[in-house]
This record gives sequence, C-alpha cells and structure tokens, in this order.
Amino acid sequence: MAEAKQVAVVLGVGPGLGAALARRFAQGYAVAINARSAEYLRSLAGEIRTAGGQVLEVPADIGDRAQVEAMFKSIRERLGPPAVLLYNAGSGTWGTITELTPEQYEHTWRVNAYGAFLSAKEVASDMIARGHGVMLFTGATAGMKAGPKSVAFGPAKFALRGLAQSLSRDLGPKGIHVAWINVDGVIAIPGRRERLAQFKEEDLLKPDAIAETYWHLAHQDRSAWTMELEVRPFKEKF
Amino acid sequence: MAEAKQVAVVLGVGPGLGAALARRFAQGYAVAINARSAEYLRSLAGEIRTAGGQVLEVPADIGDRAQVEAMFKSIRERLGPPAVLLYNAGSGTWGTITELTPEQYEHTWRVNAYGAFLSAKEVASDMIARGHGVMLFTGATAGMKAGPKSVAFGPAKFALRGLAQSLSRDLGPKGIHVAWINVDGVIAIPGRRERLAQFKEEDLLKPDAIAETYWHLAHQDRSAWTMELEVRPFKEKF
Amino acid sequence: MAEAKQVAVVLGVGPGLGAALARRFAQGYAVAINARSAEYLRSLAGEIRTAGGQVLEVPADIGDRAQVEAMFKSIRERLGPPAVLLYNAGSGTWGTITELTPEQYEHTWRVNAYGAFLSAKEVASDMIARGHGVMLFTGATAGMKAGPKSVAFGPAKFALRGLAQSLSRDLGPKGIHVAWINVDGVIAIPGRRERLAQFKEEDLLKPDAIAETYWHLAHQDRSAWTMELEVRPFKEKF
Amino acid sequence: MAEAKQVAVVLGVGPGLGAALARRFAQGYAVAINARSAEYLRSLAGEIRTAGGQVLEVPADIGDRAQVEAMFKSIRERLGPPAVLLYNAGSGTWGTITELTPEQYEHTWRVNAYGAFLSAKEVASDMIARGHGVMLFTGATAGMKAGPKSVAFGPAKFALRGLAQSLSRDLGPKGIHVAWINVDGVIAIPGRRERLAQFKEEDLLKPDAIAETYWHLAHQDRSAWTMELEVRPFKEKF
Repeated sequence: MAEAKQVAVVLGVGPGLGAALARRFAQGYAVAINARSAEYLRSLAGEIRTAGGQVLEVPADIGDRAQVEAMFKSIRERLGPPAVLLYNAGSGTWGTITELTPEQYEHTWRVNAYGAFLSAKEVASDMIARGHGVMLFTGATAGMKAGPKSVAFGPAKFALRGLAQSLSRDLGPKGIHVAWINVDGVIAIPGRRERLAQFKEEDLLKPDAIAETYWHLAHQDRSAWTMELEVRPFKEKF
Repeated sequence: MAEAKQVAVVLGVGPGLGAALARRFAQGYAVAINARSAEYLRSLAGEIRTAGGQVLEVPADIGDRAQVEAMFKSIRERLGPPAVLLYNAGSGTWGTITELTPEQYEHTWRVNAYGAFLSAKEVASDMIARGHGVMLFTGATAGMKAGPKSVAFGPAKFALRGLAQSLSRDLGPKGIHVAWINVDGVIAIPGRRERLAQFKEEDLLKPDAIAETYWHLAHQDRSAWTMELEVRPFKEKF
Repeated sequence: MAEAKQVAVVLGVGPGLGAALARRFAQGYAVAINARSAEYLRSLAGEIRTAGGQVLEVPADIGDRAQVEAMFKSIRERLGPPAVLLYNAGSGTWGTITELTPEQYEHTWRVNAYGAFLSAKEVASDMIARGHGVMLFTGATAGMKAGPKSVAFGPAKFALRGLAQSLSRDLGPKGIHVAWINVDGVIAIPGRRERLAQFKEEDLLKPDAIAETYWHLAHQDRSAWTMELEVRPFKEKF
Repeated sequence: MAEAKQVAVVLGVGPGLGAALARRFAQGYAVAINARSAEYLRSLAGEIRTAGGQVLEVPADIGDRAQVEAMFKSIRERLGPPAVLLYNAGSGTWGTITELTPEQYEHTWRVNAYGAFLSAKEVASDMIARGHGVMLFTGATAGMKAGPKSVAFGPAKFALRGLAQSLSRDLGPKGIHVAWINVDGVIAIPGRRERLAQFKEEDLLKPDAIAETYWHLAHQDRSAWTMELEVRPFKEKF
C-alpha cells in the first residue's frame, strides 16, 4: 500500500496564484483547495486529478469562524493533519477614509487577517506535536507601505504581516517555518488578460513563477529559513 | 468675548500617557477626554478645570461604532469640530496562537485598529474642509516587531500603523498631519509603581516626557512634518 | 562672571540647514561652525554675533582625518568639550554604476560617513565621562531607499544611518542621545530659489522648521528619546 | 565541441559560505573563485575539478582597485564575461566608537562596500549589453540593525545594502537581477567547529543550505524576482 501523502492546504484559490500554488504543491502533496464558491474549485480539482494529483475541495468563507472550523475538521478527517498551510485569501475594497465604510474596513480585515488567525490556529497544535510544518502567507505591498486608497486593505495586510512575524517567533523554534511573501505587483491571471490590457506582459507577475518561490520556501533546510521576502516583476518600480 | 479654543480629543485616557496628553493639550486647547468608564475621567476633568483648563468628558467604548459616533456628535455640538485627534486607546491580551481565542484576537483589533478607523473617519471631513488638522496615533514596538506572545496585539498595532500610513498619504497633502508614535517601552504610570517593581526608574518612560513629543509633532511647521518616530528610555535595548 | 555656555558643534554649514541649525543652537549654546571654505562661515558668524550669540569658525575638510582632529582640538581649547554634535555634512555625485568612478564613490562615503565617524570619535570620550551629550546626524531618503542614481550617495547615507544606530545602542545607555534625521525632500535654501524654480514653495522644506525638530530632539527627556525620524513637506509623496 | 559554460564569480571564498557557493554554482557554471590568499583557493579548486567542475583561481585583495581590475580582466580573458556575481567578501573588526580606529573603520568599509562597488562596476556593462545577469550580495544582520560593537561593520554592511538597492533599481529593468541576502546568524564552518563550541548544531547556519537559496535566487523567473531576504537558523531569535 502506498504511503499517504503529506497534506498541503491552499486557502483562497482563484485562477491566479491560488491555482498555481495548488498545481505546484499537488506535485508531492495531497492538496485541499478552498474558495468561497465551489464552482471554480470543481474545475481546478478536475484538472489536478487528470494530471494524477490528489485533491480535496473545501469551499468555505475564510472570514467565518464556524465554516473555517468545519473545513479543517473535514480536511483532517479526509486527508490528515496539514503539513503545509498556504494562506492566499485576500481581497479588499479600495478607497480613502472618507470613501470607505466601517463595514468595508471590517470585512477587509476579516478576509485578510482574521481568517489567517483562524487557519493558523487550526493547524498549529498538530504541527507543534510533530515538530514540523510550514505556513506561508501571501502579502502585498500595501502591507509594507499603505497608499492613500489603502485605508482598509493596507491595515489588513499590515495585520497579516504582524501575525506572520509573531507566529514565526513563536513557532520557528518549534520546527514550524512561517513566512510572509510580499507579492509586489499585479499578477497575470489567465483568462483575465483583457482586464489587464494596460499592462505589458513584462509588467506582470507570472503565477507559476511565484509558486516556485513558495515551493522553495516550503522546502528550505531549517538551518537557513527565510521569514520574509518580496517577489516583483523585473520592470516594476519599488 | 473670548475666542473659542481649538478642540483636541484624547481617546483612551488612563492615568498614564492619556492623562499626560490631556493635561498637556489642555494648555492651549479645549480637550475632550474619553475612556470606557466615566470614573477616572471625572477626577482628571476636575483636576484640569482646577488648573484653568476647559474639558469635556466623553465616556464610550472605542470599539463600538454607535458609541463612537454618538461621542463625536457630542464633541462637535459642545466644543466644536476637533482640530487634534490623539488616539491613545489600546489594550490587548498576550498569548501565543495556541493560547488565544478568536474572540481575544478580534477584540484586540477592535480596540486598537477598528476604533482608530472610526475616530479618524469622524474627524476627517471637517479637517479636510478646513485644510488643517492633526491625528496622532499611539503605537507600540509590537507594531513594528511582533513577539511570540503578540499574536493578537502585534497584528492590531501593525494594522494601526498601516492605517496611519494610509491616512498620512491621503490627508497630508490636504493639510492634515498624521503621525504614528512607537512608544517603545514601559510607561511609568503614577499610582502603579508597585506593579512595576521589577523596573528601575530609569527603565521607564515618563508620560509627561512623551506628551512633550506629541505636542512638538502637533505643532511642526507643515514644511517639515514627521510621519513616524519612536520614544524609548535611554537604557532601553532595541 | 557669567557661567560658560555649553558647546554645540555644527558640521557642514552652508546657507540652508547648516545655517539654520547654527542660528537656532546659538540661542543657548556657544556654537562652533564648520565648512570647507572659510568664506561663508565668516558672514554667518558675523550675523550670529550681531544677534548676541557666541560663535567660533572652524573651517576644515570633514573627510580629512588630520584636519578633523585639529578642528576638534581647537574647539575644545577655545570653547570647551562639545555637549552637542550636529553632523550636517553631506554631498554626493549622482549617477549609476556605469557613470560613477571609484573616486566619486569613495569621496561621497568620505564626506557623509567617514567624517561622521571621525567627529563622533572626537567627542565621545568627553560625553561618556560626563554622562550626557547629544549627537544628531542629518540623513536623507537615499539612506533608507537608494534610487538608481544613488549608487554613491545611497550607500554613504546608509552607512551614516548604520553608524548612528550603532552609536545609539552603545552610547544611549551611557546618557548620550544619538539620532538620525531623514530629511526627506528638497530644502528651500535662501538665495538659491531660482535654482529650485521647478518647485512650488509648498514642496520645499524650510530650514528653520527642520532646525526646530533638531532642537526638540536635543532636549528630549532621556526617559523618552527618539532615535530616528523623518521630516518632509506636507505635499511630498513618500 | 561543447558549448562554453556561463561564468559565475565567487568573491570572498573561505571554507564556509564561499566554498559552498563555489561548489553549488560549479554544477552548471564555470566558476572563478577569489580570496586574498591563493592557498585555500588551490585546495578548493582541486576538489571542484575532481568533481568534474570547471574552475579558475583568482586571488586578489578585493579592497584594492588595481587588483580587482586585473582580476576581472583575467576572468574575462580566460572564462568569458561573468553571468553571475556572488559577492561574499566581508570582514570587520568589532568594537565601539572609543575602541576602533579610523583605519579599522575604513578598512572594514573597503572590504565590504568598496570592493562590492568595484566588482559590480566590472561586470555591469557586459550584463547590460546582454540584457541579463545576476548579482547577489552577502549581507548580515548588522546591515539592518547595527549593535553597539558594530560601529565599523554595521555601517559597512548598511552601505552594501544601499548599494544593492541602488543597483537593483538601476539594473533590474535592464534584465539584471540584484539581491541582498541577510545571513542572520553564525555559519557552521567546516573545520572550525571547535571554535564555535558554545553553539549547538541547531543554532548554526549550514553553508550548503544557504547556497541553495542563492541558487534559487539566481534562477528565479524575471517576472517574480526577490530583492531582499534573510536566512537564519530556526532556533535563532530575531
């Protein structure tokens, strides 16, 4: 009987980076893939299975505590305790302090920073018990430098970065590698190229290229771990 | 008839930095002072009035939207639109990811980062209309560097820093000075010295000394504004 | 007989920030003013004396060790050991790696970062012996974020920032306040307005406004010292 | 006839990280290896040749302009223009401002920051002409946060970081990937284990592990480049 694969969870899966992470980690892990809607997950899962991968669809709203708890219960029961957590959920309404409502500010925090806490909490105990694990969080430039229209998204990504730092200082010595990746630029999402018509190809981040760096991080020797890095297109100003 | 004083609002007033800010800004402004409980506000207000200052007590839970909106309505009606906002509210439960609950994580964000958004939103429009104003936010080291036990407090103060940065980039060019002050150390709170018995006097921040730097920031010429700084005791390691 | 004034040294004095620092600190200190050429120093010294200040002109090349040592010997003999060191020397050739020569790279380092080491070394022992003192270093944005044309100036200002940090961690606990000020923008230098014709008045830093913040830093209570801050015009993007 | 291999230059080769980089990049590149003394280079070159690699020994003092120019002339003539530059030179005298001499301060800058400028300048034009290339600079924690004893080493590594940033912003859009790696901890140097007796194995960085991350950086797709990251042992406090 084949040995069970280790489990990687990819949260916040859409056709851009999420899908690229799912495909990359399916080469070596059983992957659980999450998004709010089941529809996209179904087609991606089909593709991964066709390519020989093992995949579980776990639709859930990442900002809803009960749904997140149920989702991880399902993952543990059907695949086993996660060895790798890839937190890629993130969205936000752009606007200034006079434009945005308290509801928008709160919702943006909930998807980016609250869901990350819930997810990390779900997997931390098992990882501590085994003495290893990986948690990678998808950040953004607004989490390092918040612009005038980032009054909701900036604080939420700042919070996510603070969470990753705190987790790293707590869990690192326990054998769990935590890192925050600043995706500094616009991702070339397949099928949405016309919506990014103002960009040249060379101005965009390729999802598969980003996924390679996540893969590298997830497999660094623990004597030389990276906690924080950015990825950006070579033409990008920073 | 005497010209009406400009209004400074001090949110999160306790016997430490909050009281020092209220006393300092009462030398020049009509001050509105906020805390959740009315009791401490009453005694501080009495002291400020005795010293000749003008003061309004506005008890409210800073993390509760309805209370915050009512509080600012009251301030505007009784004192006028705030020229200075000093956001000093902040508290948090310390613990690691396995120790803290989602409720504690959310509550810490609410007091530190959500209340700051609500408060900034309440005063921004008036300040923009007049083309000037000051917003100073009390940060902490955990907002720059989150330790293992800062899994709730760190992200919340990170979010506050991100909020201040976004506000600064939006409102600065409109004449409103926004700054984030990293209070990097333990404040010598009068009456609580015995609870800080492990510290020598020289290891603690004096509230009045910090308040002088807030005062300096609030009155910098707009040709040379500071957006971010730290204050720490000279003996403090950093 | 009047008590001798404390001594402040201002290094790198031109008609912009250097002169503003000299004038500001002459209200309270005997000031020694340095530049490479004696000419400008003479006219500024005359102005300060007319206003009732005490001033010593000490022309020297700040990147030349022998001249720096002779200069500080003269200051100690004629005014006494410095209580305040304001390192404002700084210049640089702009260009990319293919444009600049090794000589330009080295010279830029010498003026910005080597002279700062020499000067700090000259005053440190006396300050340590007395248990107090102030060292303020004028930085620049290129010392936080080096642009494509900052291949010489950027590293030199980075080095200065690193020096200030190291000094701060060594000397702070000994009672000596060390700080680095990022002057983030273009200074409105009197008499050179036509050379800055592309800027509106509101885009420029006023030297006197910057000097007020240096003064504030130099007199912060040691329970609440600032190690690093920036000053920038309210319209400046950052 | 076999196609000529691309050329990687490793500057500052000792038995720790330098040797690991040379061995790793010899799996794919012709490597030129530099140190001040020829002795160690000879034994490492022998080992690499035995393993089937192509290697050129180029002893030189990296802080001496004439030697650096001659070295790169030799590399270009004998191997071809470098495609990869790995700047690993670095040393420094530790001490405070009262302990270190100006000579020590200058020498530390020369090895860490001046040699890096000279080396980058030697390879930049060829890389620009071809529209690709890689420059990786070995940094240190003292280049982000300078401690009390880092009054020479800190500013030198700060300068190196500033150089890397400036190069990155200039050369990135021209297709040349520049990155700065903060090696945050103590490297387990083979043969020197007894000198590191106070450390447990798990407290040390393994040179081969660090080299894997350099290799990953050197081969990132240009749509997702990393400019700055750190590597540290999982037990390391930061």
